Amino acid sequence: MRLLEERISKDGKVFPGNILKVDSFLNHQIDVSLLCEMGKEIKRLYSDCEINKVLTIEASGIGVACIVAQFFDCPVLFAKKTKTKNIANAVYKTQVESFTHGTIYDVIVSKDFLSADDKVLIVDDFLAEGNALIGLIDLCNQAGAEVKGCAIAVEKGFQKGGRRIRDMGVRVESLAIVESMSDDSLTFRSQD
Amino acid sequence: MRLLEERISKDGKVFPGNILKVDSFLNHQIDVSLLCEMGKEIKRLYSDCEINKVLTIEASGIGVACIVAQFFDCPVLFAKKTKTKNIANAVYKTQVESFTHGTIYDVIVSKDFLSADDKVLIVDDFLAEGNALIGLIDLCNQAGAEVKGCAIAVEKGFQKGGRRIRDMGVRVESLAIVESMSDDSLTFRSQD
Repeated sequence: MRLLEERISKDGKVFPGNILKVDSFLNHQIDVSLLCEMGKEIKRLYSDCEINKVLTIEASGIGVACIVAQFFDCPVLFAKKTKTKNIANAVYKTQVESFTHGTIYDVIVSKDFLSADDKVLIVDDFLAEGNALIGLIDLCNQAGAEVKGCAIAVEKGFQKGGRRIRDMGVRVESLAIVESMSDDSLTFRSQD
Repeated sequence: MRLLEERISKDGKVFPGNILKVDSFLNHQIDVSLLCEMGKEIKRLYSDCEINKVLTIEASGIGVACIVAQFFDCPVLFAKKTKTKNIANAVYKTQVESFTHGTIYDVIVSKDFLSADDKVLIVDDFLAEGNALIGLIDLCNQAGAEVKGCAIAVEKGFQKGGRRIRDMGVRVESLAIVESMSDDSLTFRSQD
């Protein structure tokens, strides 16, 4: 998606350790009008699917997911990273290793909100190693829900997450795929 | 807001310890069309203010904030609960005690995204003791940003947060104020 690629080139910042910071418009400060254009594009890509639930993971996936869900006219469910006393015991649980933080954490969704009736679009802001997405797919599998695909804002194409998930037979649409990056340049994978 | 009060009465669940669960439509599964109606109402309430930034705190505030921000045509900034290596050192920091979890945590925003140019609407899903809001107000004060007010989905009127913040001279608009609750009944404060 040209608009997103241009924005990443303009406002994204590269840091040592393959870190791409897009926190001026995507995952700290959020440009909601950009999200809206991204939502339109994701709806176009998945227009053939009868999505009835958008699934994401807290925290930075929630904004994208809520805007995207408006275009599918369906609810969002966000998986939680720890068990709080506000969540009942009846949960599906999986474990996810964080690339950013270097830790492993539990991820849960309530069994009340994910079931075999659901045709799920998994939405997230970033795809790097793919651990979060694999965790979300696992939650869907536990619930018997059908994963129609994943919609990602920014995929780091030089990390293995995208290939891992596509090799599982799961459709992945990333609006921008960063093929390589250095301090002063970003290259995107052609998706025409 | 009648629509929200009705939804809380229909789908909210009361648990021991003054816990009101609204996780079927507000802070786990999210009814985005309800959020959209809430956004319209918040825009109506704050139509006289030239809001140019919506500030919230991860995680469950993000969805409401993003939908609300669409009506103000401005970006969202969400405060983060821990310092990650994706955030630069230049941050405003405050501490917040969680009513839900019984812990104290650091809350930060990047200095890049909050400044004296900002006229801020603080948005959150819940107001109970008011600690999160007071933390967000503190971040705005550190940045010299002007807090135009707070917009809350559900205020627990029998806890002290609402009074604390209004006593600070900060405008608080809560779309539903729960005056009292028990296992089988919920009473809302009249706001006509």
